[in-house]
Formats: sequence, C-alpha cells, structure tokens
Amino acid sequence: MKIAVVAPSCTLSREAADRLEALVAERGDCEVAVHPQCFLSDGHFAGTDDERLSALREVMGDPSVDAVWFARGGYGSNRIAEAALADLPVASRTKLYLGYSDAGFLHAGFNKAGLDVAWGPMPQDLMRNGGRAAVTRALDWLVNREPSALEPDLQGPAMAFNLTVLAALLGTVLEPDFTGVDLLIEDVSEHHYRIDRTMFHVTGSPNVRKVARLRLGRVGDIPFNDPDFGRDEVAIVEEWCGRSGIAFGGRADIGHDVLNRVVPFKRENP
Amino acid sequence: MKIAVVAPSCTLSREAADRLEALVAERGDCEVAVHPQCFLSDGHFAGTDDERLSALREVMGDPSVDAVWFARGGYGSNRIAEAALADLPVASRTKLYLGYSDAGFLHAGFNKAGLDVAWGPMPQDLMRNGGRAAVTRALDWLVNREPSALEPDLQGPAMAFNLTVLAALLGTVLEPDFTGVDLLIEDVSEHHYRIDRTMFHVTGSPNVRKVARLRLGRVGDIPFNDPDFGRDEVAIVEEWCGRSGIAFGGRADIGHDVLNRVVPFKRENP
Repeated sequence: MKIAVVAPSCTLSREAADRLEALVAERGDCEVAVHPQCFLSDGHFAGTDDERLSALREVMGDPSVDAVWFARGGYGSNRIAEAALADLPVASRTKLYLGYSDAGFLHAGFNKAGLDVAWGPMPQDLMRNGGRAAVTRALDWLVNREPSALEPDLQGPAMAFNLTVLAALLGTVLEPDFTGVDLLIEDVSEHHYRIDRTMFHVTGSPNVRKVARLRLGRVGDIPFNDPDFGRDEVAIVEEWCGRSGIAFGGRADIGHDVLNRVVPFKRENP
Repeated sequence: MKIAVVAPSCTLSREAADRLEALVAERGDCEVAVHPQCFLSDGHFAGTDDERLSALREVMGDPSVDAVWFARGGYGSNRIAEAALADLPVASRTKLYLGYSDAGFLHAGFNKAGLDVAWGPMPQDLMRNGGRAAVTRALDWLVNREPSALEPDLQGPAMAFNLTVLAALLGTVLEPDFTGVDLLIEDVSEHHYRIDRTMFHVTGSPNVRKVARLRLGRVGDIPFNDPDFGRDEVAIVEEWCGRSGIAFGGRADIGHDVLNRVVPFKRENP
C-alpha cells in the first residue's frame, strides 16, 4: 500500500514528517510518500493555491497511490476544493482520502463527486501528546482496515465534520447530500454562543434536516463565555435537534484530539 | 414619534438606558419607551427566549409605536426571529425596525416578510467613547430622516449585515432575496483566516451572487493571525468577489463602532 501525504491547508512540520517516516519504517507494512509541497509556506498556507492544488491533483491522478492522507488542518482547503474536482482523473476514483478538520471541505466535495473519503487522524497529530497512538490508529485502518480504529457506534452510512467547517460549506458547490446519514460533528476553540449560532445555522438547512441522526463528538478548548452561557454543548445540540425535528443520536467518539477515531463516509459493509 | 426599545439579544445596561433617556429629554422631539425586558438576564441573553419574544411581539403589535429600536447586539435574536414573524399583526407593518450586529437575523427575516428595517446605531452604543454622536445620528434619522445620518454612497436598494451574522443565516428561513441590492458588510473580532473562510461561504451562495455590488465597511479588532495571513481584509473581499463574479463596490461607511451610519433596506426615494 502506498500512501501519499499532501497539505491542502497549512504547512506540515518537518519534525512531524520525520516522526511519521520513523513510525512507518518501524511498521514495515506500507510506504508513505510525503510530498515536498507539505513544507511550503505562503502566509497562512502550505504554499500558494496553485502549489497546493497542483500537489493534490498530482497524487489524485497517480495510479500508484492507494491513499491520499491530508497532512494537517488549519485553514485553506476550501480555496482549492472546487478546482481539485474539475475533470477528475480516473485514478482519483480508486483511492481513499483521509483527514479531518479543515479537510472537511474536500471531504464534502469529494463525497459529492463519488470519491471515497474518511475522517481520521493526520500526520501533524504526531506533534501532540499521545499523537503516536492516533496516527497508528489511522495507519492500522488505512493498511488493514482494522475495525478497532473505527468510531465504535457506526450503524448506517455516516459523515463526520468539524461543525464550523460544515456550516461554512452549506450552500456552496461543495455541499453533499445528507439524506439518511448519521452526521457526526465536533468542534474546537469556539465559544458556547458561537456553537449555538452555528447549530441554528446548520439545523436550519433543509438538507441537514434529512440526516438519519446527528451525533456529537467532543467539543474542546471552549473559550470562556461572558456571561456564562447557561447550558453546555450537549444541551445546545440537543435543543437545536429538537427544534428542527432532527433525531439526536447521542455522543460520538471523534474530536479535535488524539482520541479521534476513523469515520469512513462510504461503508464497506453497509 | 414614539420609539420602543427592546432587547432581542443581550441585556441593555441601566446606565445606557439612563443616558438615552437624558438625551431624549434634552432633544424634546420624540418619546422613547425602554421596555423593562431590556434589563432581564438569562445566562447570555436579555431574558429567556419567551421573554424576549413576548416583548418584541408586544411592541411590534402596538399601533402607538412608530419605531422599534433594538437595544444592543451580542447574540440571540436568531433564536426568536422565526417566531417573531408568525401571524404578523397589522401594526407591525407600519413601523420601522432599527439596529445592527446580531439584529441582522431580524433584519433579514423582517425584510423578507416585507417589513421596513434599517441598519444603524443602538442605545448600548452610548457606553462607548463617542457613542452620544452615534445615537444622536440614529435619532436624527428616526425622527427627521436626516440625510447626513445615512451611509453617504447609497445608490440603489441596499442591505447591511455583519458578515458573520450574514453567513449564519444563509440557507435558513430568514434568508432574504439579495437580487439587485448593494450588500454592505462589516465585521469585528474575527481572524483574517475566518474572514477568508466566511467570504468563501457567503460568495458561494447563488443568492448572494445576485447582488448588484458588495461593499466593505470597517473590520475592527482583528485578532493576530499566526502566521500572518499575508493579505488584509480588503484584498480578501476583493479576491472572493472576483472569484465569484460579484462586483466589488469599494468601501462603505459602516462598522461595529461609533462612526456607524444608517442604511435603510427599503429606500424612501428609490
């Protein structure tokens, strides 16, 4: 199995790449090719839009690549997502695309175009405490489809998104069809009032209202709400589900953290 | 002229209300009734959803009230906007609704329902340095339709929104028709990468792409973007206008500040 790493959002650290290469060498069960584009820098981004798009298109069209792994999140994949989907090369349809956070813009558009995407840990997670276990989980799933790497309560078809990313793609050309899926959400570094506002937005979408269930992953690093918001993120999500007629499916084992698990959008055994 | 003040979002400070009453007494050209609901508090909000909705509906339906002035922004009007529009009382159609910031959720839905709304300074602005001039500008326009209170370059029909509020109402039942309007936006306390993401979202909307022009007000209090984003808010807005075929109409004299001017959504002299 050959895994190509590209960075459609922000720059991958050299140290994360070194740790990834060491981990892969130790495992000996796959080949990982970190694209040089991962280390480019252009302001906020891992290179200009053209540089990021070009690297992404290159690995999408490479028949020798079995999986494309997004190096890290941050911000920026939305700027190239529509162009990445133009005139899809045949080879792009026979591989898997893995990542989370800002990669959700690509997940959405790629899923809509019929490509095979999954939510899961990324190489830059190796810089976090406990990141080795997270990245090992992703590799176990990429290489062996190890079931223990999966979010444990997947039932029907599922999608997973960072809530703020999900909100920002509604109404754009990237918006996929949510009919009948379990929609798993998580968020990080957003005030409670912002989570409430984003839930208003997301559950106000007629498309999102077609989900089978909405499930809530971990919401981390919530800044202090002044005054105290008066209810926590679970109460917020449950309330907006209730208001909009969406079934709340309880908690999900995903998050912006090293405990993050894998959620394939297209189930192999539906 | 009788102006009713209600708080569909956050609590009005007593001191702001005192300053408003003193200013109005000095002017002697209008009557301002600050609804007691303005001083309620329920976590983040100026009372529960029911309390805020009830006060808003009361003044909307009161035939003696000529204008409804939203006390301040913050967050929360979206939670009651749809209910506020149910079975509109006749008297609600003969008055004006003034405010900015979070009041944009009401502006959007009210405009869609045919009510007469305007963007402009609010009573809580009296707590800011220079707030007296801002609130005087709003009163001059409410009472005398003073032209110098208006945003100076209004041409055809216009709408004004906080960018983040605008994004959060796209796709919901509150979304108005943007066909042919000059859309004025401003924002506050958002990183450059967030402004870029929100512009991606907003300019990805087929409805927003029908505007005559998009104009950019002031973007204040921008937190440090690490790394530096590499371009400022004007460049960001111009780029997304260019990408989406929207005409960029230059700067607008609105903002989350005491220089903020009035933008009536329905022009009296079209």
